[in-house]
Amino acid sequence: MVPRYALSPMKALWSEQAKYERWLRVELAALEAQAALGQAPREAFEQATARAHVDLERIAEIEAEIKHDVLAFVRSLEQMVGEQGRWLHLGLTASDVVDSANALAMQEAFSLLLDALRGLMALVKQRAFEHKHTPMVGRTHGVHAEPITFGLKLLNWYAQLERDALRLSQAQEAVAVGKLSGSVGTYANVDPEVERRACRALGLTPAKVSNQILQRDRHAQALSALAILGTTIERIAVEIRHLSRTEVAELSERGAHRSSSMPHKKNPISAETLSGLARVLRSNLQAELESVALWHERDISNSSVERIVLPDSFTLAHYVLVRAKGMLEALQPDVERMQRNLGLTHGLIASQAVLLALVKKGMSRAQAHERIRDLSLQVSAQRPFKALLLEDTLILSHLSAAELETLFSLDYALKHVDDLFQRFTQKRGNPAL
Amino acid sequence: MVPRYALSPMKALWSEQAKYERWLRVELAALEAQAALGQAPREAFEQATARAHVDLERIAEIEAEIKHDVLAFVRSLEQMVGEQGRWLHLGLTASDVVDSANALAMQEAFSLLLDALRGLMALVKQRAFEHKHTPMVGRTHGVHAEPITFGLKLLNWYAQLERDALRLSQAQEAVAVGKLSGSVGTYANVDPEVERRACRALGLTPAKVSNQILQRDRHAQALSALAILGTTIERIAVEIRHLSRTEVAELSERGAHRSSSMPHKKNPISAETLSGLARVLRSNLQAELESVALWHERDISNSSVERIVLPDSFTLAHYVLVRAKGMLEALQPDVERMQRNLGLTHGLIASQAVLLALVKKGMSRAQAHERIRDLSLQVSAQRPFKALLLEDTLILSHLSAAELETLFSLDYALKHVDDLFQRFTQKRGNPAL
Amino acid sequence: MVPRYALSPMKALWSEQAKYERWLRVELAALEAQAALGQAPREAFEQATARAHVDLERIAEIEAEIKHDVLAFVRSLEQMVGEQGRWLHLGLTASDVVDSANALAMQEAFSLLLDALRGLMALVKQRAFEHKHTPMVGRTHGVHAEPITFGLKLLNWYAQLERDALRLSQAQEAVAVGKLSGSVGTYANVDPEVERRACRALGLTPAKVSNQILQRDRHAQALSALAILGTTIERIAVEIRHLSRTEVAELSERGAHRSSSMPHKKNPISAETLSGLARVLRSNLQAELESVALWHERDISNSSVERIVLPDSFTLAHYVLVRAKGMLEALQPDVERMQRNLGLTHGLIASQAVLLALVKKGMSRAQAHERIRDLSLQVSAQRPFKALLLEDTLILSHLSAAELETLFSLDYALKHVDDLFQRFTQKRGNPAL
Amino acid sequence: MVPRYALSPMKALWSEQAKYERWLRVELAALEAQAALGQAPREAFEQATARAHVDLERIAEIEAEIKHDVLAFVRSLEQMVGEQGRWLHLGLTASDVVDSANALAMQEAFSLLLDALRGLMALVKQRAFEHKHTPMVGRTHGVHAEPITFGLKLLNWYAQLERDALRLSQAQEAVAVGKLSGSVGTYANVDPEVERRACRALGLTPAKVSNQILQRDRHAQALSALAILGTTIERIAVEIRHLSRTEVAELSERGAHRSSSMPHKKNPISAETLSGLARVLRSNLQAELESVALWHERDISNSSVERIVLPDSFTLAHYVLVRAKGMLEALQPDVERMQRNLGLTHGLIASQAVLLALVKKGMSRAQAHERIRDLSLQVSAQRPFKALLLEDTLILSHLSAAELETLFSLDYALKHVDDLFQRFTQKRGNPAL
Repeated sequence: MVPRYALSPMKALWSEQAKYERWLRVELAALEAQAALGQAPREAFEQATARAHVDLERIAEIEAEIKHDVLAFVRSLEQMVGEQGRWLHLGLTASDVVDSANALAMQEAFSLLLDALRGLMALVKQRAFEHKHTPMVGRTHGVHAEPITFGLKLLNWYAQLERDALRLSQAQEAVAVGKLSGSVGTYANVDPEVERRACRALGLTPAKVSNQILQRDRHAQALSALAILGTTIERIAVEIRHLSRTEVAELSERGAHRSSSMPHKKNPISAETLSGLARVLRSNLQAELESVALWHERDISNSSVERIVLPDSFTLAHYVLVRAKGMLEALQPDVERMQRNLGLTHGLIASQAVLLALVKKGMSRAQAHERIRDLSLQVSAQRPFKALLLEDTLILSHLSAAELETLFSLDYALKHVDDLFQRFTQKRGNPAL
Repeated sequence: MVPRYALSPMKALWSEQAKYERWLRVELAALEAQAALGQAPREAFEQATARAHVDLERIAEIEAEIKHDVLAFVRSLEQMVGEQGRWLHLGLTASDVVDSANALAMQEAFSLLLDALRGLMALVKQRAFEHKHTPMVGRTHGVHAEPITFGLKLLNWYAQLERDALRLSQAQEAVAVGKLSGSVGTYANVDPEVERRACRALGLTPAKVSNQILQRDRHAQALSALAILGTTIERIAVEIRHLSRTEVAELSERGAHRSSSMPHKKNPISAETLSGLARVLRSNLQAELESVALWHERDISNSSVERIVLPDSFTLAHYVLVRAKGMLEALQPDVERMQRNLGLTHGLIASQAVLLALVKKGMSRAQAHERIRDLSLQVSAQRPFKALLLEDTLILSHLSAAELETLFSLDYALKHVDDLFQRFTQKRGNPAL
Repeated sequence: MVPRYALSPMKALWSEQAKYERWLRVELAALEAQAALGQAPREAFEQATARAHVDLERIAEIEAEIKHDVLAFVRSLEQMVGEQGRWLHLGLTASDVVDSANALAMQEAFSLLLDALRGLMALVKQRAFEHKHTPMVGRTHGVHAEPITFGLKLLNWYAQLERDALRLSQAQEAVAVGKLSGSVGTYANVDPEVERRACRALGLTPAKVSNQILQRDRHAQALSALAILGTTIERIAVEIRHLSRTEVAELSERGAHRSSSMPHKKNPISAETLSGLARVLRSNLQAELESVALWHERDISNSSVERIVLPDSFTLAHYVLVRAKGMLEALQPDVERMQRNLGLTHGLIASQAVLLALVKKGMSRAQAHERIRDLSLQVSAQRPFKALLLEDTLILSHLSAAELETLFSLDYALKHVDDLFQRFTQKRGNPAL
Repeated sequence: MVPRYALSPMKALWSEQAKYERWLRVELAALEAQAALGQAPREAFEQATARAHVDLERIAEIEAEIKHDVLAFVRSLEQMVGEQGRWLHLGLTASDVVDSANALAMQEAFSLLLDALRGLMALVKQRAFEHKHTPMVGRTHGVHAEPITFGLKLLNWYAQLERDALRLSQAQEAVAVGKLSGSVGTYANVDPEVERRACRALGLTPAKVSNQILQRDRHAQALSALAILGTTIERIAVEIRHLSRTEVAELSERGAHRSSSMPHKKNPISAETLSGLARVLRSNLQAELESVALWHERDISNSSVERIVLPDSFTLAHYVLVRAKGMLEALQPDVERMQRNLGLTHGLIASQAVLLALVKKGMSRAQAHERIRDLSLQVSAQRPFKALLLEDTLILSHLSAAELETLFSLDYALKHVDDLFQRFTQKRGNPAL
């Protein structure tokens, strides 16, 4: 974790302290279940609950000696609890603790992400509705195409974020599992009932089957959801960068970063930073995907990977959501400039509307296409497209001046915008997302 | 698509012919909807239905001239239909056709994959139950750990495949959308009702909002599901490669490939091939993830990527499933060798069971651990672990010979196997997967 | 290989026919060496040379039967040669042939790429010198910064292409190795002298050590060079897309693709296509990187990967170079528009020059920065930056009107351009690249 | 950076303190050059040298206020230096400092890596020569093939590490460049001679051309070299894991990690950890490759990526080399077990030698292949391959018992081993690597 990109409360979640506290929760949940089942003394559980706590320094000392983090942790607890401490971790393997505790971390982490995402979604939706009827030019290939509204652009982002929310939820569910099935998943030395009870207490579902560990397709799905989420934010960020450029100037960030050397500049730094972090989220996924095909009942090659990419990807995804929200809050659309840019092609953005009207009136598509293209080459500020059409007898033999006027109106181009927004006000399930 | 790795019927699905036929379906569905709504002559739809067909040669000729595949396709249809042909594609943009048709292709492709996956799952499950009680050694870090059964290993694969089936279904749903919303998604020149009707006829849901195209987070989710699926198969393949090695010899493939230069060899070629193809599925995902953040209302940089990775990933995923099934059908477990390998450590695989029993009897974990480790260093074929324990007075002061005997029995190690399999016979939803 | 993206002569290089011809070259080179060393009859070599040829159909028939492509190929040759055919492939393992032949393919492929790259470089350099003094605005963060020249932008591309040429050469050298060392690299059944002679005849260096195969770090380096090359072209393509957008309009592509639905549009399709293909080149690298850590003296998991990514990456890299050259040939800079865009900020692009001049004259940086920022907020078309400065007594107390005039001149901003270009005219080695 | 995987002295190199010290070196080198050229007062340089130092706390305070790390740093220096401080950073842009300083960091980092790599290489070479004649079985597809020696396996690793050393050197050279060319690379406000002198003083080559930054193909090449290096170590690690498995047991790690739950186990944890870290090195490359195609004269999306992947990849690569060396030092080959494993196939590993001898004696390859395969199916401990051959009249009609004896001898299989090692004792350049 780069401190710069780890924010509260996500950052705390991945601290050493929090990790060991989760380990302790798992150990105690297992011991409580064993005590309840008569497989360990009730007293052991009570003493452990009363006395065991996380002592980072002590753990570090023991680990330096025995080179095994879970064993060091358990030994530190045993020392605190005393003689009854030997009932701790009994029948468990290190991964029972680590994997179940990681599941707890990821549950919390996904909940934080979903909260942040919902906050972002609410903001995007609100701004979308605010700008439902703010016209701007739609661009394909970077080139002016036809009118849209700024609200529509935001609504499209919103819909993608909605899909991200679904993917996050699906991924959260995929990793909401614990396992206390022992060294090779056979429960040879721990009762399956212990797993059931402990998982219930921890808010996890027991894995239907496991080996020494939980299978890593689950974690790969989690990081895949984060990678796609990052990419959605990248899409928003790239768009903001485009619309902030000097020549377009339709958006700017209130209080945007200024240059050290060039005092006049306002730079879309947030959007650029988010573009970069999306790449890291994508590449972290790759490392986890390679960590699924472990050998036999487990090898530990996933561990070094996950020490890096799990905390990094969750904290980066969180940072990305928080920063994206800040960026969108500070985003200032220049409505007048949007209007002005709509006119930059002197009416050519109506060319398709005219083409189709001609075809509907009976002109062949090829003839209509050719004539419009020819006229389009003569268009200039002095001779806008509409004026040229109104002088063209072939055109006028199919379309009246009034009809042409209509085809150039924003009302024509945007007549279905309300219908589109309507879809996001009705309550429905998510069949269509 | 490498011909070697493209199998029927998936291969045909991605042929040029099939692609254009899907395009035609979309065009006709749109025209039918327009005719039904009185926005195009009924006659135009009827003539188009009667006369339009896919003529690869004609399309190629026109494309060579005008350098636009969709336009060339539409023009070829217009020429077949005659004067009424001008109503085809009216108000649509090329991506309306391409993206909706791609959705049709992916729907079919996912269905083929799910069929193949279910066939593979049935086989794995059947073999798992066959070998429910076939003991073998469980290995962690490549080293003998404790007994499992071969069935359990298969069951674990089955459970992961089950999760893949869920991921595929979720992804299939994510891409089951069409769009006929025009150049920038505003329906400026096509009625939203046309989209609704055409999509219904095509078996797709209309996207709630789109711009020139469908958003690519959907496609990224699709390729992510395929990448994880490939990785699951890789996990199975890697395991088979391990268990097929000369020293282990617990598995072999009936009719396995033989070496050209070394006539005695049987090589797990299928498993190695599958290991390789998983890498390609993973890397294709990366290219699509980079194709989500398109500019404005679309840029076409995703197109060259998807011409390659969409057909390749779906055909490879299909190949991988088919070949994995063949591999598993031909897989011959050597039950006797599994039994023999269980004994290779002369009883040491019971060490944890003994350790825990000692702790439960009141020995401190540290003392028990140390004594067992000391004894383990003396183990040999002549002096198996159990014999050493039976000679050790410290051990015997805690455990009787009969108790020790029990701890070394497979019945002890595998006592919960039936419980585990039970979970896969009950009908339940998929809360736990 | 997608036919659309495979061009002559690179395409032919990766055909089945060409592949088998390379295999035949390796077989004959080995046999010739054996004959020369008296380890095979001279007659065998002569008959093989006279009679053996590539018969695709025959090979396919045999392969269908014995499921081994190299064995099928060798058997087809044996049948052609007759009784002496048994001396073919003697002592070799399949990978001796495949890997050495692949090295031949890659040598040719790299040479084709280097030719294409040099052609592209010559064009870029020529256009750079043409536009050495064509002023345009330099942009950072998408925002106007300070003047550059269009030639400088091109020169920067040129320098990166120069580095790509070096990386390609280094990679070509890394894979310019053959191996005829037998099943496990020990020359148990083939004389090292045969390898030496055959490799020399084939224009390859014998690997200093090998096992069954050549080690894949070599191939990973090759694909890494191609991935970076693709990324360089992506950088050029992204820039062209930016400068082609409606609002910027400094570049356009002669004969650019037009829209099917919007007759007025000119879209930078080539540049977008190249952006996409760079992603595929990057992701193919990933698959090969995962294919380096093969098991023991080889496993064959690299083979399925390389059947896909080797031909694909080389043909795509070639396509990308050819198409980039075409794109740059058709590229039309609008010099007048560049000039006009330089003025869009009404002189603010000189702000740093003024700031530094003030500091040199003794003003504190903080004070200078603040005053300039304040003035910059008042700038408009009516009140350009220079005019505001000329009215500001604080500024004028440090800088004369003449000095200010100088700071706003392009001559000031671009005074070192000739020096920069000079560096590319001197002959020097490549210490600085 | 995960503290666990960051070792001295590489770790210190990437600390905040060290970063700012490099920034200071660049600032002072620039000022010294300006002073020498009469473009700044000598006194300014002297006072800056005397008074400026890194004050982390002060920088953090200023950055919290102005949100710009370089500006904050420069301001902290100005405050220390006093009135003459305004000559610091004059004419420079932030990236002049950051990129040149990063080049310094990477130069040091590559040197540390090359030192560590050479240490590892020396160890591998030494152990290779020690075990030059230690026979073991060669395996392909995980299956016994023909004899090799353990030394040969090590020698092959050595040769790959040699190639890594070359790649690291090439990459080090690619990033050994500085730039002090100002906001858009035109030297508008800084003399090119300042860049030349400052770079010389810093031990860097000035970039022939730059824009606001150094181009990122250089950094991508650097991370590519690290990714391949990691993959080489992964190859070694995977091999050690294979040879350490219970059934093979040819290698073990002295003092290997023991299991918490299973006291008898020795696990190749180092090798597994290294396998994992290679994946992270590979994926980091992907993020940098995506950061090459920056917009115009720079966007800053590379910055967030590089804050993560540059320190991480260099520290991980260093860790990987150090840990690999430790692993290899502790590696204990079980020479006797290697010998024993050679016999596991009861002589079948000589099958190719016999096959070829038969063909040379005039038998057709097909007949020889078939007979050997038939016999191989009858081989058992009781009936080893050689015995079967000595009973087979067809075989004996071509080969004498003495000839057969030879074909089964290790001397036959390993007769060229000395020749192979010889290649690594001669001094030669690196044409063949």
